[in-house]
Parts: sequence; structure tokens; C-alpha cells
Amino acid sequence: MKIALAQLNYHIGNFESNTKKIVDAIHQAKLEGAEIVLFSELAVCGYPPRDFLEFEDFIQKCENVIDEIKQHTAGIAVLVGSPSRNPKIEGKDLFNSAYFIADGEVKKIIHKTLLPTYDVFDENRYFEPNKTFEIVEYKGKKIAVTICEDLWNLGNNNPLYTICPMDELMQFKPEMILNLSASPFDYEHAEDRKHVLKANAEAYKIPIYYCNQVGAQTEIIFDGGSLVIDEKGNVVEEFQYFNEQISNINLEKMDSLQIDICKLKIEFIHDALILGIRDYFQKMNFKKAILGLSGGIDSALVLYLAAQALGKENVHSLLLPSEYSTSHSISDAEQLCKNLGTSYDIVPIKNNYEAFLQTLNPYFKELPFNVAEENLQARTRGVLLMAFSNKFGYILLNTTNKSEAAVGYGTLYGDMCGGLAVLGDVYKTQVFELCKWINRNEEIIPTNIITKPPSAELRPNQKDSDSLPEYDVLDKILYQYIEKRQGPKELIAQGFEAALVNRVLKMVNSNEWKRHQSPPILRVSPKAFGVGRRMPIVGKYLS
Amino acid sequence: MKIALAQLNYHIGNFESNTKKIVDAIHQAKLEGAEIVLFSELAVCGYPPRDFLEFEDFIQKCENVIDEIKQHTAGIAVLVGSPSRNPKIEGKDLFNSAYFIADGEVKKIIHKTLLPTYDVFDENRYFEPNKTFEIVEYKGKKIAVTICEDLWNLGNNNPLYTICPMDELMQFKPEMILNLSASPFDYEHAEDRKHVLKANAEAYKIPIYYCNQVGAQTEIIFDGGSLVIDEKGNVVEEFQYFNEQISNINLEKMDSLQIDICKLKIEFIHDALILGIRDYFQKMNFKKAILGLSGGIDSALVLYLAAQALGKENVHSLLLPSEYSTSHSISDAEQLCKNLGTSYDIVPIKNNYEAFLQTLNPYFKELPFNVAEENLQARTRGVLLMAFSNKFGYILLNTTNKSEAAVGYGTLYGDMCGGLAVLGDVYKTQVFELCKWINRNEEIIPTNIITKPPSAELRPNQKDSDSLPEYDVLDKILYQYIEKRQGPKELIAQGFEAALVNRVLKMVNSNEWKRHQSPPILRVSPKAFGVGRRMPIVGKYLS
Repeated sequence: MKIALAQLNYHIGNFESNTKKIVDAIHQAKLEGAEIVLFSELAVCGYPPRDFLEFEDFIQKCENVIDEIKQHTAGIAVLVGSPSRNPKIEGKDLFNSAYFIADGEVKKIIHKTLLPTYDVFDENRYFEPNKTFEIVEYKGKKIAVTICEDLWNLGNNNPLYTICPMDELMQFKPEMILNLSASPFDYEHAEDRKHVLKANAEAYKIPIYYCNQVGAQTEIIFDGGSLVIDEKGNVVEEFQYFNEQISNINLEKMDSLQIDICKLKIEFIHDALILGIRDYFQKMNFKKAILGLSGGIDSALVLYLAAQALGKENVHSLLLPSEYSTSHSISDAEQLCKNLGTSYDIVPIKNNYEAFLQTLNPYFKELPFNVAEENLQARTRGVLLMAFSNKFGYILLNTTNKSEAAVGYGTLYGDMCGGLAVLGDVYKTQVFELCKWINRNEEIIPTNIITKPPSAELRPNQKDSDSLPEYDVLDKILYQYIEKRQGPKELIAQGFEAALVNRVLKMVNSNEWKRHQSPPILRVSPKAFGVGRRMPIVGKYLS
Repeated sequence: MKIALAQLNYHIGNFESNTKKIVDAIHQAKLEGAEIVLFSELAVCGYPPRDFLEFEDFIQKCENVIDEIKQHTAGIAVLVGSPSRNPKIEGKDLFNSAYFIADGEVKKIIHKTLLPTYDVFDENRYFEPNKTFEIVEYKGKKIAVTICEDLWNLGNNNPLYTICPMDELMQFKPEMILNLSASPFDYEHAEDRKHVLKANAEAYKIPIYYCNQVGAQTEIIFDGGSLVIDEKGNVVEEFQYFNEQISNINLEKMDSLQIDICKLKIEFIHDALILGIRDYFQKMNFKKAILGLSGGIDSALVLYLAAQALGKENVHSLLLPSEYSTSHSISDAEQLCKNLGTSYDIVPIKNNYEAFLQTLNPYFKELPFNVAEENLQARTRGVLLMAFSNKFGYILLNTTNKSEAAVGYGTLYGDMCGGLAVLGDVYKTQVFELCKWINRNEEIIPTNIITKPPSAELRPNQKDSDSLPEYDVLDKILYQYIEKRQGPKELIAQGFEAALVNRVLKMVNSNEWKRHQSPPILRVSPKAFGVGRRMPIVGKYLS
């Protein structure tokens, strides 16, 4: 049986563009001889639709798309994700469903059983879980239709769920599994997915066609990488990462792939961030970006990524030196712009900073220079960047990295401004790694930017290490605490110094209020600040 | 049987202070002769603990509190909320539980069945639902122990759940219901609660002892108002709203209350906002607030509320006039400070605004005055307020109202700055109502502040009505759209003009990115911006 997978980039709530993509893909798949075309989870509305699902009008629009799709199913069956209504009075009003459509009719609606409600997922907020099982029969084939998480209960190792949909479906002796997915990227997740799908194919001894969505939806980046796995657990087709792809699969004619995907973790992160920037701008209908270029490594990396994502002609930098900026800050930043071919202006903040000091002088009097004056510089820069943004239609890119966001090393309404936080899920040590990888063939980011000691340059001879532990130690503690949920006892048992552990955890927990006002952060790790990590601001825990 | 209810204000994760409150209440209840003392849901850690629950250390600390409580149960039984571990491998690792402790032992752990996962609630993110039912027997009495939502499936009217815990528990013939609750305030919810509890008492013909928590946890305000209802559905005790209270109840000796709570909706909102400010400061260990006083009604109301919450000596205002400020803006603001007895400084922004224009002139050249210059003024004010905040340790209060937040009428990093958005869930028309109510006996807020047409004063003769529909129409549409989830068709059917509806909905949906960076908003309505309303930023729906 020839089955096409359509790995597409949907736009949440943009029914017109989603419908066009779906209909075009149906016709392409049919032209190439597919008998079934498989789309991803909630394809008609885009995933995750969040509280749009609470609007009757939104659900009706989903149903209208299904009606439109019906008109294009002569000679091809379509399996596409959409919310559907729960006919029962009891329980939530919607299911997360797969519509099986053929010959102009909805033949069957299969509902999702396992509703992920952790990290970035909130499916139990909207959907009633499926409790009855059936398969789809088409052209003499018995097909187990599953939706994303439905394949993720492998029954081992402290499973989140008390039910295993594939165990239930096996009583009908299906010959293949089709899976509609919306599985977001993180730098470990492509491997996880492959492992889970192989384990299913091996356990049930049937092939799996797994269709993921691709594209960034604000902070959540979907990487695609759809897979076809034969009944022995061999990968026979692996779709592109971070790109759309529509391909017909004929399992009988295919050999298993000899090579697995061989991208480096750092290359995955690099590609994900570029897609994240590009899709944010495209879906928000923005074109041009601006950022403050300090001469440091974070803003250098953001400028490089933005130029890749949006085109060098669409990214403008402001160099905003103060009296505490070192001379190489300007020259390094200028060299970077030259290397990338991007435009810049140099706008010293001296006059504005001094005007503020003068206004404040009657109140501040002889009080010593402190964080107030440091923040004043960062906020003066924020105001100037936002003025350019408002006057010329640039969107400001935020350059805060995850280490800084974690410990609150940044100025709210200063360097924490921006429409999108590009590096907010990338630790400082990973920022270094990325820059080195970008420079692997030629010096794109000037070496001096990479090698000089990190500094906010808000007072004379300031270094990050005055206030923070060295990044290689800090990042290890942060990773164990944030990504791995290790508490103080576990961290100390791992060999970190107790006083340091307590100091770092206190910094993280007492800066929740600051992160609350952060721009959305592109998610590349299994635990990103923002929608995937939800902490009480007034909490008094380890703080 | 004498049962005490302890309606307390917990601090999330602050085990030391929570333990002390619980232990003190046990001793007080015992002294007054109680046989059981009832606490609220997740009392040991405070509700909602959010992702703190993912830390083993946090769960251990909850268990330590239970161990401590055991030591105080000679002669009195305690029913207290805490997370507990799921002994089964399958399913989530925790239950949301009620510990029944007597004679120094945990006699029984009852788990919550209905896990609210909507609006501000995320319980399915953390907890496995209970599926087996049993009652507690103590001193010859059969007690149905339920946790909050467990009483909220009345079986009528499109219930969210497919199970009804009280129906299950009735097979054991309980003689009373004890309910541990964490039920947040909104201006309709006290009535809803009373209705639901009465309906339960009437349906099952047994009395209900209902213990709620009180106090604000960042944006979510818990109002207390614990209730005792007899087997006929009569309210026999209604606890204070917005205050802690510990009282012993002897149902046999009590008559039903002749009067229901008779606070006005507007008085509830007033009291809730004051508690919200007070608890935010107290739990964050802040003392002093600052705000920008424009002479308009929103900042006037915030100043009044902050003075009530924190004491007039702890609230400082900055008057930050520009060339577009009208003379009465200053005089009205000064009069208000005099009325309230609060301090203020007048800090004109002219020099700083002009310094920015000068710096930007080489780039802006002859381009016309537009939103860039308007925002520049608002951001200059933001920088000055934050400088005072940083130098003197004030926390900046945000004065944006819900109508402005809804349509994006405000400057990010300008008037949208602040640690807490006091009015972000209060529509402009409600701001007027509140001020009139505050002035019901004497003129506290100068009448001129209430009667003049709203204006941002960022350009000559600007009025809000230049950019927005009149607030009385706007707020009606916003209420129907936000609180009632009515879509364009329903709104037009209600008689609102189609073009206006589409314009307003487009403004709301296209400003999600702006609200994302808002300070936390004190929640007083059934649908507040922030944690209760989760929308995709890049969504393209009605926008």
C-alpha cells in the first residue's frame, strides 16, 4: 500500500493557509500514486491551539476545513488531525481526533487516548481522553490509527499512564500503525522518538508511519523528522528536519536506511533557532529585526542567527557604547557586521545616561553608584532600541542567554527587552559551543568576541565572574537543577560544593518574577523557561 | 461532634511558616474543645505549588510537615491537605490528598478524584486522579472526605467529569461531608460556591463542613469564606472573607443564618485587590511601593488601594509631567496625595525626553511625530520610576486596566512596567465604579479625576476615545468575548455592530505578544489575563 506523509508547517488559527497546504498536499500525493495521505496532529488548526479551542467559532472553522477536505478525496484517503466534538454530555466537550476521510465522506473519527499534560503540554485542559478502541479498515488493510502520545506508553519504567492504547488495538490484529504527531524539538528528542517508535514496531511486529508537524509556534519548535519504520524496527525513511516534505512511501520496495541521522546536537540547536526566528517573523507578519550589539558573544550569536533566518539585509544593529565600554567592544562588533554584511549605527548613550543622572541627582544626592545606575544604562539602551523599533518597524531581538535568565543576571526593561528571546534556552557554555561550530570553516564571529571574558560593561572593569560562578560550573548546576529536577541534596551528592549549590538555587528561585516578564523564549532543551516550567512567583522555596 | 475549621493564609513552599500556622491552629482548636480540625487543600505546601511538585526534595518536605503534625494530635484528629505518593508504578507519581491524622498516626489518606484542569488550574499536570472510594470513621461517625472540585460535579448541565465522587461515597452511608478546598476568588465565585454546597447538602441530605484557604498567591486571590451547611442546605456558618479565621462548629447547637453575605460585588473586588497587594508584598518580603501618578483615574485608584494595603507611609508617588500634560493633571494628583497622606515628588520628563529626541534626530530626521515619540515619553517615565525603585527599594506598581491590556493600549517597558499589575483584571468601567464606591461617604479621590475624559496625554489634546471605542461599549464587548467566550457571530447577534466587533476582537488577538510581558495581574474575574487565559502569540485567528 502506498502511503504519503505530509510533513507541513501550519499556522495556528490561520485556516485559510492551513487548508491550502493540506489540499495541495492531497493533490500532490495523489498525483504520485498514494492511496492514503497522512497529516499531523491537529493539522487543520495548527498545534497547540490553546484557549482558541474554547471558542465555538474556532471549532466550527475546523469543521469547515474538514468539509473542504472531503471535496478532495476522490481516489485517495486522507487521515488528518482536528478537534472533534464529544457527543456525550459528561466530560470535556472536545476530543483530539484523527479524521479518516475517503470518497468524500468522513469514514471514521479516532480520538487520542493519552493526553500529555506536562512540560509544554496542556491537552487535558481541553480534551476528553478516548476510552474505546477500534481500527480503520481500508482497501483490505487493517490500520491502527494513533495520535502522538498514544505510542509513548511503553509500559516500562514508571509510565505516566495507566492505559496502553496499542495493547488495546492489537486485539483487532492491525497490519500497520499510522501516527499523527505534533512532537516538539529539543536537542534530545529526535533520538527519543526514534527509540520509542522502534520499540513499538518491535513489540507489535508491524510497520509504523509517523507524521510530525514542522515549524515554530512562538516558543515551541517542531522539527519534523517524520519516520517510517518497518515491522522489524528498522528505519526505512527519515524525513527532513526543520523543513516541509511530502513523500510517498511504498514499504515493499524499500530497504532500511544504512545511516541514521548524523547531525551534531549543536547543529540541531543551530537549525532550530534559525527556524524559530524565521517562523516567528513570518507568522507575525514581521520582516525586519534590530538588536543591540555589545561586542559580547550573546548578541554576536543572535545577529548571526537572525541574518541566517531573515536575510542580512533585514537585520540592523545598534552599537550603544557607554563610558564603561571597552574600545574593542566597538571594533569587534563592527568587524562582525562587516563579516556578515549587515548594517549598523553607533549611538553612544552618554548624553541620555547623563541626562537621567542629572534629573535624578536631587533625589539620589550623594548615594553611591550601585545597581540603579547600572540598570539606568541598560534601560537607556532599551529605550533607544525600542525607539528605532517603533519608528522603522524593526522587531527587537532579545539576546539574554539561559544562564543569565536562570540567575536573574540582566536588567528588566533594559537588556531583557525584545519580541523574542533567541538564546533564552541556550546556556552560556552552549553559546560558546555554537560560535565555535559556526566558525568551524572560517572566522565569521571574530575570535576576540569568543575569547574575551564575559562582561556586562556597566561599571569599570566589570566581569560576569564578579557576580556569578564561572559558567562551566554554573551551567552544570543549572542543568541538573532545571533540566533534571535535581534538588540540593542530589546536587551536593554529585560533588558540587554545598554553599555554591544553595547560592545558585536561591538565585534561580528568587528571580521567577523577573523571568515572568521575559519575551517568549525559543525552546531547544527538554526544560525551557516559559510555558514548559511553571513556578509560583511568591513561592518561598530554596530561596 | 465539634469540628473546627482553620481558614489560613499559607505561603507556597514556606514550610516553616505553614507548619507553625497549622500547629498553632491545632492547639487553638483543641483548647476550644474541637474533636476534629479541618484544614484546606494542600495546606502543608500552599496552593498552587506548581512545578515545585516535580522536586523530590519538595515532596519530602511535605512529608516532614505531616510527621510534625502527628506530634500534635493527642486528643484531636486533624484533616490536612498535602501531596502524597502514588504507590503504583503506572500513572503520575503524586496524588492530591487529605491526610486524616489522629493519635499520632496517619489513619487514612484520601485522594482527590476530580482534578480541575482549566482556567488557572493545572492539577492533571501533577496528580493521578483517585479511582477507589472509602470513608473515614472516627468516634463512631462516618465521614465522607472530599477535596474541593470533588463536590463540583452536580451531574447537570454539561458536567466536565464522567464521575461523581459523592455518588460513589454515598454507598458507605456517610453522616457528614468534610471538604478541603483551595477555591480562588472571583467576583461571582462566592455565590457559585454557596450554590454548589447547598445543592450537595440537599441532594445527599447530610451536612457539609467546607474549609477554604485565604490569601493571595501572586495573581490568584483566595477569599476564604469557608462554610458550614446543615443537612437541609441552610448556611449555619460563613467564615470571613479575605481574613484568617479559626472557629469551632457544633452543628447541633446552631441555627441557620438569617442573612446571607451582603457585600456588593464592587466591595468584594475592592477587598480582594487590597489583599492581593498586601500578600504580594508580604510574601515577597517587600515593604514599599512606588507608582507613577498621572492625574488619571487608574493610577489614582492604585495609589488608594496601595495605601490601604501597605500603609500610607509605605507608598510613594512620582508625578512625571511632560509638555502634553494638562495643568490639572498635577493639581489633581497632588490633591489625591494630600487626601491620602502619601508622599510624592514631581519629576518633569522634559529634559530626558528631549535628550532622547536629540540623540535620535540624526536617524529620525524629518519623519513625523508618531507612536515612537509617544512611547518615548512613556518609557522615559518607566526608566525614572525603575531608577527610584532600584535606588530606594520601592516595588513599582503597574496601573494598566483590563480594557487597556485587552486592546494593547499601553507602552511596553513604559506604563506597562511594574512588579504587580493591580488593575489588569478590572475593566475601565469597573475602575470608575470602584472610585465612586470609595468616594461614597467623602471625596477621597478628587472628583475631577473621576469626571475628566480619559487621556494618555502623549500628544496635544489626546483622548482615549481618539483610538478606542467609548469604554461603556468596549467593555461590554470585551466582557462577552473574554469572560463569556462569545465569538464574532454571537456578539453580532447580541446587537453589537459588526465592524466594531471585528475591530475589537482583532485588537485583542493581535496584542497577545504585548500581554505576554505584562507583570502578574491580580485576578478578580472568572477569566483574567495571565495564567487563566492561554493564547498562542503567533496565532492568526480573528486578527
